[in-house]
Amino acid sequence: MLTRTESEQRIARLQDGLKEKGVDAALFIYPIDIYYFSGTRQNSVLFVPAEGKPRLMVRKSYFRAQGESVIDDTRPFPSSKEFPSLFPPQVKRIGFTFDVAPVQQYQYYARLLPGVEFVDISSLNRELRSVKSKLELERMRESGTRLCGVFKEIPGFLKEGMRELDLAAEFEYRLRKAGGEGYVRMRAYNQELFQGLAVSSGAGNPGFFDGAVTGRGLSNASPHGASTDTIQANVPVLVDYTGVFNGYIVDMTRMFVVGRLAPELERAFATSLQIQQHLAENLKPGAVCEELFAQAAGIAESAGLARNFMGAPGENAKFVGHGVGLELDEFPVLAQGFKSPLQEGQTVAIEPKFVLPGLGVVGIENTFAVAREGGVKLTDLADDIVCV
Amino acid sequence: MLTRTESEQRIARLQDGLKEKGVDAALFIYPIDIYYFSGTRQNSVLFVPAEGKPRLMVRKSYFRAQGESVIDDTRPFPSSKEFPSLFPPQVKRIGFTFDVAPVQQYQYYARLLPGVEFVDISSLNRELRSVKSKLELERMRESGTRLCGVFKEIPGFLKEGMRELDLAAEFEYRLRKAGGEGYVRMRAYNQELFQGLAVSSGAGNPGFFDGAVTGRGLSNASPHGASTDTIQANVPVLVDYTGVFNGYIVDMTRMFVVGRLAPELERAFATSLQIQQHLAENLKPGAVCEELFAQAAGIAESAGLARNFMGAPGENAKFVGHGVGLELDEFPVLAQGFKSPLQEGQTVAIEPKFVLPGLGVVGIENTFAVAREGGVKLTDLADDIVCV
Repeated sequence: MLTRTESEQRIARLQDGLKEKGVDAALFIYPIDIYYFSGTRQNSVLFVPAEGKPRLMVRKSYFRAQGESVIDDTRPFPSSKEFPSLFPPQVKRIGFTFDVAPVQQYQYYARLLPGVEFVDISSLNRELRSVKSKLELERMRESGTRLCGVFKEIPGFLKEGMRELDLAAEFEYRLRKAGGEGYVRMRAYNQELFQGLAVSSGAGNPGFFDGAVTGRGLSNASPHGASTDTIQANVPVLVDYTGVFNGYIVDMTRMFVVGRLAPELERAFATSLQIQQHLAENLKPGAVCEELFAQAAGIAESAGLARNFMGAPGENAKFVGHGVGLELDEFPVLAQGFKSPLQEGQTVAIEPKFVLPGLGVVGIENTFAVAREGGVKLTDLADDIVCV
Repeated sequence: MLTRTESEQRIARLQDGLKEKGVDAALFIYPIDIYYFSGTRQNSVLFVPAEGKPRLMVRKSYFRAQGESVIDDTRPFPSSKEFPSLFPPQVKRIGFTFDVAPVQQYQYYARLLPGVEFVDISSLNRELRSVKSKLELERMRESGTRLCGVFKEIPGFLKEGMRELDLAAEFEYRLRKAGGEGYVRMRAYNQELFQGLAVSSGAGNPGFFDGAVTGRGLSNASPHGASTDTIQANVPVLVDYTGVFNGYIVDMTRMFVVGRLAPELERAFATSLQIQQHLAENLKPGAVCEELFAQAAGIAESAGLARNFMGAPGENAKFVGHGVGLELDEFPVLAQGFKSPLQEGQTVAIEPKFVLPGLGVVGIENTFAVAREGGVKLTDLADDIVCV
């Protein structure tokens, strides 16, 4: 549960950001943004002036929001007529999340507030959210513990001849019993993920997903994750899953094989571990995101695996780590073009992976917190390939 | 798999709609819209001139899209420089889905195409999609058969004392093994659903979800669906799940109870069946959506259950059925304000439900196709309450 104190701290940081950008207020309409500041994800709109108290206006369910929101001024959504009168006249520039707000919503609020200029505060919002509080880090550690508990059970049910889909079903069943909430929020407009990927011979298929691995999936309509291909001896099995608990996501990958892996795959996996270790050691405040990516790509290149790094040759993803928290695709991103320095308390899923066409996919992924001593692993389970 | 012929028919219907609205072309950026016309859901942009051939421009994965798309002109996404030159100069007004396109995406494309006016074709797009082809109706019937297969197994695992979450996990496990794709697409910007609801004592909680039932869920961050409450004797158990196969969703609800239901609940359930029967009989081309809703509400009122219809008293949802197909919230909607007549081939989930505070929630839901002889049930399983 979000405390009133922590909500106030989050609002205060937002207000500092608004003032710095010369924006008079923020208007949030996206559920998880509202949850972050208020403690409720009911269908609502959150108004935060750059100075003064926030106001939560609830469409549905007001009853439930009253019990969850820590915003003092929580009220039913006003009529369209009343709505403009709730905005102080000094609000001339209002911040809005252009990254996720559909044009129709923007037009609706712009019509309600004539003369007010809407400005994009997507980056500010994502930057604020990227730095986790002590409470959030505890939540994420708890998510990590629960997800690792499910990963530990894999050797008990992974069998040669089962479909990737059967492996997924067994994993997801245990994840759900452990309290997994299932729905994985992503901010990018064209991304979607059903919990994770349990993939083996289908792992090397390129796909729409902004990651190293997409999987073949079950149809062209749902082209990601497990397929009906069967798991065969000596073919790497990559299990890349999220765990969502109390809204907080962690993301991890482990490798399994029935039998043994080819030496090329073993060697590529060792390179994944080497990259992970380098990045974890350097996951400190001040480290520059794109420099970490360049270093990771450099290690892959030294190992003669540049073409295979983070995707099938020619379809390589251009990152090696991504922020994670209430959404799977948070800031920061360890990628070319991200020039910002890491901050203490950010949480990053580091996932060096290699696609070796004809052989399979190997890699590792753990969620880390950025700390002065280097990355603190929140998904605390041995990294080794498990042979069953 | 979408055939080339059917894709051409869909494009032709869209082009008729564009011409009728005086729009020169459409630009789709939303994955499932693109899938509907092209057969691929890879990360792409689809351009459809009001006259002439469509063009699919693929960001990721071009390799995979080549194997899936039935659009002749399928090519890699062009550079920003090249992009405008691909648009014929006579394109002055371009249709865009303002309902789902984020402001940032709109601004991006508007910058690339200066002087072009963007107009909202959300309704046209949804209207076209609402009428299913023979192929789509077969797909949905297949989804119905598979989902019913899982519902049939419920009496085998539903037990007194298990958590709502355990019931959900058992159901979802079997759904996944049956080939369920899991990710349920919704168009509304603030809605999300993790597959469905397995709810009993938590069923009556109001919530954000635009439906009669939301469930308590596992946390304030994920406040829908199963909770950790246990299933108790004589308390109704409502299982409301979607099944997604080949992208096509069906939606159904059945009632279960360990023991017996109170007479008030039995009576409310009988009223649900009565409403369903009335609507199914009248689910014919030409029937007006809002009149069907009014008739349903009238039957509820005659039974003395107006306050309990489609939600907890004071939190009642204002509809009794919704279109379903590639998305869970398609057109048509059986609700006040929807004045359009039904069309043959539309598919509608009809879900009369009653929330009786302190007693529980009962109701029924089936997915029907609109036909001349009245609704054809695509979720072909007995409607009765199952006592275990």
